[in-house]
Amino acid sequence: MRSSLEKKELEGYIVTNESNILYFTDFLGEARLLIPRDGENRLYVYGVNYERARQTAKNCFVELVKWGEKAHLTVADHARNLNLRRLGFDAIDASVFLRLSRALKGVKLDAQGKLIWELRKVKDEAELKRIRKASELTSEGMKTALETVKPGLREYEVAAEIEYAMRRAGSDGVAFDTIVASGVRSAFPHGGCTDRRILKGDLVVIDVGAKYRHYRSDLTRTVTAGKPSPRQTRIYEVVKDAQRRAFESLRAGVKACDVDAVARQIIERDGYGEFFVHGLGHGVGLDVHEPPGLNPENDEALKAGNVVTVEPGIYIVDFGGVRIEDTVLVHRNRAERLTEAPYNLEV
Amino acid sequence: MRSSLEKKELEGYIVTNESNILYFTDFLGEARLLIPRDGENRLYVYGVNYERARQTAKNCFVELVKWGEKAHLTVADHARNLNLRRLGFDAIDASVFLRLSRALKGVKLDAQGKLIWELRKVKDEAELKRIRKASELTSEGMKTALETVKPGLREYEVAAEIEYAMRRAGSDGVAFDTIVASGVRSAFPHGGCTDRRILKGDLVVIDVGAKYRHYRSDLTRTVTAGKPSPRQTRIYEVVKDAQRRAFESLRAGVKACDVDAVARQIIERDGYGEFFVHGLGHGVGLDVHEPPGLNPENDEALKAGNVVTVEPGIYIVDFGGVRIEDTVLVHRNRAERLTEAPYNLEV
Repeated sequence: MRSSLEKKELEGYIVTNESNILYFTDFLGEARLLIPRDGENRLYVYGVNYERARQTAKNCFVELVKWGEKAHLTVADHARNLNLRRLGFDAIDASVFLRLSRALKGVKLDAQGKLIWELRKVKDEAELKRIRKASELTSEGMKTALETVKPGLREYEVAAEIEYAMRRAGSDGVAFDTIVASGVRSAFPHGGCTDRRILKGDLVVIDVGAKYRHYRSDLTRTVTAGKPSPRQTRIYEVVKDAQRRAFESLRAGVKACDVDAVARQIIERDGYGEFFVHGLGHGVGLDVHEPPGLNPENDEALKAGNVVTVEPGIYIVDFGGVRIEDTVLVHRNRAERLTEAPYNLEV
Repeated sequence: MRSSLEKKELEGYIVTNESNILYFTDFLGEARLLIPRDGENRLYVYGVNYERARQTAKNCFVELVKWGEKAHLTVADHARNLNLRRLGFDAIDASVFLRLSRALKGVKLDAQGKLIWELRKVKDEAELKRIRKASELTSEGMKTALETVKPGLREYEVAAEIEYAMRRAGSDGVAFDTIVASGVRSAFPHGGCTDRRILKGDLVVIDVGAKYRHYRSDLTRTVTAGKPSPRQTRIYEVVKDAQRRAFESLRAGVKACDVDAVARQIIERDGYGEFFVHGLGHGVGLDVHEPPGLNPENDEALKAGNVVTVEPGIYIVDFGGVRIEDTVLVHRNRAERLTEAPYNLEV
């Protein structure tokens, strides 16, 4: 971080986003973090979080923000005392930004969220250990899902079993709201789960993720409740092929958009292009959706240590949808699946 | 909303916050909403959410934002076409705000997040129905917690049973990360839950919430694993008394800070003032922490239809903590507990 600050000629950085603070300090909760280029980091928290921060936050001195004080103004005071004249920041609400600008007249405030993403995008060994564990727990959840799903059950009842299995196995909670989207609802990529009863013959998209020590994972399988129809099978095979081929193309140095294109071309070739309504994937870490995105717009070259999802889908309104997704780790010469579940349409 | 815009002399409003968009449209997901003072609301979503928005979003026309377009610039284009010259907004990231300001030269952009909170703070009957149901499910979770907790279990194992019970009963998921904080960890108000084994004699703070159709609830009880010590009992009785008395003082017209003061004075009188390190409560609705806050800083008068938590606590480092919390509805002449669980230290 300090060398990034030097490169950008910043004298300090104000961190507001909770995941970014977690990244630097291992502390999760409402807080502000001031990172001066030289000198000690300082974490600002209200009383409700003070003792926990003091006992658990790493790489920083913990400062109590008192009743009635505005945390961002306390940070501004300290930045002024340190005579920091060029400050970066990650994500600040516009109205807070305007107040901060007034409090720090003469100081250059620079939106530099990308600077932290450059660090967070490449996972180190300690992070990978947690993501691997989160992926194991996620795979455990999917195993339960595939054993559970059947006609007559409500979508949320399947979600209950999945989440219970992950929790029992040691997950900190879900990485995102579990999706169990059945029948025509499976055509909504972010369909959530409802009290709809799963019917015989329905496509069921199951998208689950566990958290482990703040790190996340993400896994989707699609199955039919009962014997699949020829059309369901045809669509499934296209998505499966697209997912496998995109995965096989993934390695350090390849452009994110080119991996997306591998899957997209297969789906387009088979005439389903218009139904693949999202990017191929996204980074996963402390957030479930983070850079680097695998999509037609992102021409950055992937790096060893990136963790991304590979999740093509075909969504046909009033018919249903199919998505197949794994969380994978990018290596120098290949990619590695961190999540694990069978690729079978019929359970 | 339109009459609020008129009062503030705004010609339109850009909504970015997902809970605010949910409030107006019942649609949850990444989106932008433009509310002109006159004319049709427009919801802007990317392809991944388009069909679901089209089929489920209320009170708006749904517009597709294409690959490579920036949603906020698409909104800006439309606002310019409508010739809106004074726009309010709720919560926009500073860097997006700066880009939006450039795209809308000559247009006044006004941070007016409070305007929506004034609406959201007072719940209508349809909202209360969902909050009541979320509260029922939350009480169900606590019932399971009290039946489950015992020495030898790990904190997350208790959380697993709570969340499973709520899900099985029809909850959409947790309203926030479940807290099961035992032993010295119970002294952290936001202690989360870990793999720590609960020991005999530990204080255990259990803080749970269910979601139901996007609305939330929030309930805390503290118990001992085994027979409580005299000191534990003494602290518990102070918190219990503070919670009951604050609840009894709650009705429309009373100032938020005065309700906080009722609890705080009882805790101070008994010599524990320095250990009550947070406000008495917060609003609950689509978000788990929302206005109005019950704390020493907020002198607003409460209104019938406010839903708030009442949750005094005493947290003593290296000893443990006690918090007792209910979610309550403010009526004209009284308050009503929406959550339900016994007030016993010993389970």
